[in-house]
Order: sequence, then C-alpha cells, then structure tokens
Amino acid sequence: MRFGLQCRRCGKQKPFEPAKTTCACGGSLQVAYDLERAGRTLRTDALHGRVHSMWRYAELLPVERSAHIVSLGEGWTPLLALEERARDLGLGALQVKCEERNPTGSFKARGASAALSVARAHGLRRIAINSNGNAASAAAAYAARAGMEAFAFLPADCPGAIVAECVQYGARTCLVDGLIHDAGRLIREGRDEQGWHFIGTLQEHGRAEGKKTMGLELAEQLGWRLPDVIVYPTGGGSGIIGMWRAFAQLRALGLIDGDLPRMVSVQAQGCAPIADAMRSGGNYVPLRGVVTSPPTGMRVPLPPDGEQLLAILRASGGTGVSVSEAEIADGARELGRCGVSASPEGAATWAGLLRLVDSGWIAPGERVVLFNTSHSGKYLPWRMEGVPCVKNYAAWRKLDQESAR
Amino acid sequence: MRFGLQCRRCGKQKPFEPAKTTCACGGSLQVAYDLERAGRTLRTDALHGRVHSMWRYAELLPVERSAHIVSLGEGWTPLLALEERARDLGLGALQVKCEERNPTGSFKARGASAALSVARAHGLRRIAINSNGNAASAAAAYAARAGMEAFAFLPADCPGAIVAECVQYGARTCLVDGLIHDAGRLIREGRDEQGWHFIGTLQEHGRAEGKKTMGLELAEQLGWRLPDVIVYPTGGGSGIIGMWRAFAQLRALGLIDGDLPRMVSVQAQGCAPIADAMRSGGNYVPLRGVVTSPPTGMRVPLPPDGEQLLAILRASGGTGVSVSEAEIADGARELGRCGVSASPEGAATWAGLLRLVDSGWIAPGERVVLFNTSHSGKYLPWRMEGVPCVKNYAAWRKLDQESAR
Repeated sequence: MRFGLQCRRCGKQKPFEPAKTTCACGGSLQVAYDLERAGRTLRTDALHGRVHSMWRYAELLPVERSAHIVSLGEGWTPLLALEERARDLGLGALQVKCEERNPTGSFKARGASAALSVARAHGLRRIAINSNGNAASAAAAYAARAGMEAFAFLPADCPGAIVAECVQYGARTCLVDGLIHDAGRLIREGRDEQGWHFIGTLQEHGRAEGKKTMGLELAEQLGWRLPDVIVYPTGGGSGIIGMWRAFAQLRALGLIDGDLPRMVSVQAQGCAPIADAMRSGGNYVPLRGVVTSPPTGMRVPLPPDGEQLLAILRASGGTGVSVSEAEIADGARELGRCGVSASPEGAATWAGLLRLVDSGWIAPGERVVLFNTSHSGKYLPWRMEGVPCVKNYAAWRKLDQESAR
Repeated sequence: MRFGLQCRRCGKQKPFEPAKTTCACGGSLQVAYDLERAGRTLRTDALHGRVHSMWRYAELLPVERSAHIVSLGEGWTPLLALEERARDLGLGALQVKCEERNPTGSFKARGASAALSVARAHGLRRIAINSNGNAASAAAAYAARAGMEAFAFLPADCPGAIVAECVQYGARTCLVDGLIHDAGRLIREGRDEQGWHFIGTLQEHGRAEGKKTMGLELAEQLGWRLPDVIVYPTGGGSGIIGMWRAFAQLRALGLIDGDLPRMVSVQAQGCAPIADAMRSGGNYVPLRGVVTSPPTGMRVPLPPDGEQLLAILRASGGTGVSVSEAEIADGARELGRCGVSASPEGAATWAGLLRLVDSGWIAPGERVVLFNTSHSGKYLPWRMEGVPCVKNYAAWRKLDQESAR
C-alpha cells in the first residue's frame, strides 16, 4: 500500500481508515506514506508538468485512485512578495500566501477537497461538519461537486456571507446556539442515527492531509528553500500541524534540508489559548473562561489537539502572539493597501508581524511568510435570514422531522 | 517595436499610446503586434514552464518590460468540467471557466492588471474608472499593488460588498446618482483638471488586451481545440471583443485552426441592447428606454462599441439571449449545486444555455463553455455606509475640496 496509519505514540501501523484517529494505546493515529515509493516519482523535475492544484502532490495525499479526487482547482495559490513593506520593516523578504484565492475563498478548500475525496474512495456519501464557517462552506461546495449530501452546523453568530455560501452550495445548514465545539457535540449526538461521516477538525484524516499541501507548495514556490519565519492565524491549528508534517516528509524525501521555519501562531485577544500557553511557558489548557473575540476562524477555545500544536511551535523555536481587534483592523487596511483582500485572520498575521519585528523577535534580514487564510468579503457585517438555530441534536432532529412532513 | 496601434478602418499604423483609441479617420485604433516576432517564442512547448498567470502570454500583451507588470497572480483560472450536467443536457462537453477565482473575485482583474501595467510603463500614476463595480474594485486593488492613486465612480445602487472592496484597497470611492455612463461623464468632466488617466471600458488599450487572455487561456486549456459555443454574460462587451481578437491572433500564429466558436451574448431582461439587436436582426441602437434590471455587470445600456460587438456575434454565427431574474436565480442555484459560486452574470449564462438547448440552437453533442465572470458573494444584499453620492463632477469637486480643508 502507498499509505496507511501509524500511531504517534506507540508507532504501531494499521491499514488506512478515514475516521480511525485513535490507537488502542490512546495515542493519535496519523497517515504514514511509503516515502521510498513516493520519492521515486515526487521529484522536483517531475513537478513541472503537473496539474496546478494541490493534487500535484498526489503521492503525499491519502487517495489511491485519481478517479476519486473531488477537485474544484484548489491550491497552487499565489505567493505574493511585498517588496516595499519588506524594505520598510528591514526584512530580507516578506511574502503573503494568498489562500483567499482558493475555491470558496479560503484555505479550507484544501482540507475539504482531500476529505471529500477520501469519503468518495470509501463510499461515504453523507457528511457532517461543525465549523466557524469557512470549513463548512468549503465542505458544502465539495460535497456538491461530488454529488454528496452535506450537513453544516455553525455558531449562531457565524458571518452571514458564509452561511449564505453553505446554503447556495446546497448544504443542509443549521446554526447552533453556542460555539464551534457545541456544534461538534450536536454532530456526535446524532452521528450514529443519521449515518453522518463527521469531518470536523481532526475527526478524520483527509482535512489535515489536505492542509499539508500549504507546506509542500510553499517549499516548491520558494525553490525548496523555506523562510525563516511563518506567521499563521490559529484556530484549531490543523494548518500548522499539516505544514509541519509536510516539512518532515519533504526532508525525508531529500527535497529540503537545513533549519525549518520558526512557526508563529497568531490569535485574537479574547480567545487565545495557544498564544497564552506559549507566553506562560506552560502546558496546553483549554480555555474555560468567557470567549470575547468575534466569530472568525481563530475563535477555537478548545483546539482538538492543542498539545501537538504547542509541541510544534516549541520544537520549531516559534512563538504565539495575541492581537487586539484594533490591530487586526489596522492590518486589514495595511494589506488592503497592498492589493490583498485580507480576512481578519490574515490581518491578524500582519499585526503579529509588527509586534515581533518591534520586539526584535524577528531579526533584520529575516525572510517571513504570512498566511492570508481567507477573503475579507466573507466577514461583511450582514446577516443571512431564514436559517434555523437550535441548541442540540434533539432540537435539530425535531425540526428535521417537521420539515420532512 | 513588439507592438503598436492600427486603425480598424483605414489600416494606418501608429506608435503605441495608452489612451489613443481613435484614428484621424474616425476609425477605432487597436493594439497590433509583430506576430512574426511573437510566434518565435510563443509556442505550445515553450508555455509549459511559464508563470501560471495571464502574463504567460506576454508576447501578446502591450507591455515591453517585465518590470512594469503589475500582478496579483491573475488569470490561469480553472476550466471546470460539469460532466453530469453535460450528459443530462445531451452535450458533448460542458465546462465553466471559473473567472471568480481571479484576484478581487472577477475577470476584471485581467483588464486591471494590463491597464495598470500599461499605466506604469507610461508614468501614469493617477487613474480613474467608472464601473458597475467589479472593474472598479479590480482597478483599486491593482492601483494599490502599484502604489498608484485610484478614483472609483460607481452607480448609486452598486452592491455594497463591491463598494467595500474599493474602499479597502484604498481607492477614493464615490457613488454617482445614475448609471455607469453617468459615472463616465463625471470622469470626462474632471479628467483634465484632475490629471486622471481614464481606464473606463475601451477608453484605453490595456483592459481589452488583458481580457483577451481569457481566449488565449481557453485555447491552451482545451489543447488548442476551441469549443463549439461560448456563452458569455455581456455588459460593455470587452470580454467578447477581447476573446475574438485572441482567436484571430492564435490563428495567425498557427496555434489554432478550423471554425471559431459561435459567440453568445447573454443579458438580463430590462437592459439587453445587444440581445435585442441580435433578435431583431438590426443595427446596434443604444438603449434609450428605462433600465429595469438590477445592478450587475450586465447592466450597460450604452456599450461603448456596440457595433463591433454585434459584428463579432454575427461573424461567429452566434446569437444573443435575454433572460429573466427568475431564470438567473435558478441558474445560481443550479451552478451552486455543482460547487460553483455563480454571480448573477455567471448564472445568466446557465439560463441562456438552457434556452438555447431547449430551442435546438445548441445541438446534441456540441461542446459548450460558460463564463462565470465573478463571485456570488459580491452580490449579497448589503449596503456599505459612509460612501458619498454625487450627481456630477462639480458636486464631487466641491466634496473633495471640503474634505481637503
């Protein structure tokens, strides 16, 4: 087999299953590839003629047959050099990875493309997702492309433009009176009864593997020479987890060498469990206090694998930064003046960059990449009307049965 | 020189000037390339290694030095095959050119990239544009990227999301109490006093040349075998004019041969001067009646070169179709269920397709390409507040002077 599962704790190997994420020992399972085999075809010179999407790295994605790939042309997004800004800040290079250029306007398209491809390969045709918004609209679009049913559960204050997208792509869309983990609980409650394939963050293997392609692409676009620092807006953290895995695989394949980038998590003040833990130097502690930050992709008080995320930030020599709403607004304006449509998440990376340059943590001459993970248009202050809102699975089921009558 | 201007009527040649669009004889000037020279480097095998943007066709764009190119990674958008829908409709192939995947979410990025590059090459640093919205937000983004000043003038009922984009990219943005041509009149009134480089539809050469790349790309992506029918949503019509020019140049270069596609203009009922003229078989007559269609890119009652547009549709054996708002809404839903974020313009092409398949104008087995020219999110029913609205240049100038105080 080209790929299987391997436990991160005990090292045991198992055949691939889409939703098997925990080993008998309690450790987490992740996709392991036959890298010797992958390395025979995944060579820099062989990449030139390949498809301009994340599927150019098919050897490192958990889908056996290309007929199963569900694609809308995701990935291979521009890496935009901000030359004047780099000069102003004394950096060696400053680039923005324009993830807003993906289908459905966010990096979540990568995860959805991989997750739905895995689902198709395994005959799963009814998917459910909890999300702060963008992961759900991406899942909805890829489910539509694959002719599958999608069920999207979003926090009640999810930006209206994103709710509207889910509806437009034909997903059965419902708001949940709570935060992203409350929406996840609803799905867990109903999973068996509804036969849902749950594709929430780290609930299956496709999404993290898809997001891994951000790291593969970054390496290729930079001529296999990674930057000194990557500044990434962090919610569930699967982008960082995925990229870190990409770098490990590229190194094993001999495509990169030398130091890996220092990884920086940027979060919004009011919901910054990762940045807080990095600052305190302590272990990961889920946020139990009141969440006061607005509904963006960074608002994840209980990241499903916070320990792994912290371990990566520390192993890389990275850090965490929490920034204010005012700094985020300034960042959006600054990036806008560079021609980049920055989401609050992308704008937060600009704010984080300024902080780290000011403090000297980023040194003169260093090469920095920011990730603009989604499009600003998704966060317009507009409300989508006519979408139901429930508290839990029982309430959703009641609505569902009434509407079927 | 690699390119210059040539009169479409008298054939006279002149050196290139960005805004010289009319010959002494009254004919219109267009960019003419040294095709023999272009053909030496623009070969199918040479394209493989090139940049994944519209600038891969640099030989056919009116910019001499690559340092002048203002790029955000525009073009090289996916061509998505809708295989099930093609089967349902009895077509040989049905594909959607996903122009919503451009920077700023519309095909207008191509025109803006070329127009701003031409402006940079000629030292012009203060641009003004009238637009139904998307051309202005694109111009704003590229002006930001180039460090130039942009002035955007939009109809008062322009969708709020697009107005917000113009503001975010730092354009001086103003609504005009009227339609797109009223906004154009305002710019003409102020052009000399303000030193504006006017980049409205067909006012300079960059935009039409940039849009031409849709035709070049389509040919390359289809393996140099064009479809039987192209269905295109039409406002000012520079997309069709540009693509037709692309096909002529590709033919002259020997990159394509055989019949060219039948070009179909789709417009919205309530503002369909081109579709109406095609139906009546008569000459182009600007729409003088009341415009009742909503503010989309198709709402152009007085296209600047309606005659050329009609001549192309007729020469290609094409036609015009006007579709209702209900058909457009159905089209958006249908494309959404395929995973495509269809703007009203893209949705209109779906509606036009259904009409032409029903009537038999498109025959079983034919290969059809639809253009989804922009992203659905731009048309959310939301209003941007705080942007001034004026009637004419004098009123704008008064506001401008007051705000400078």
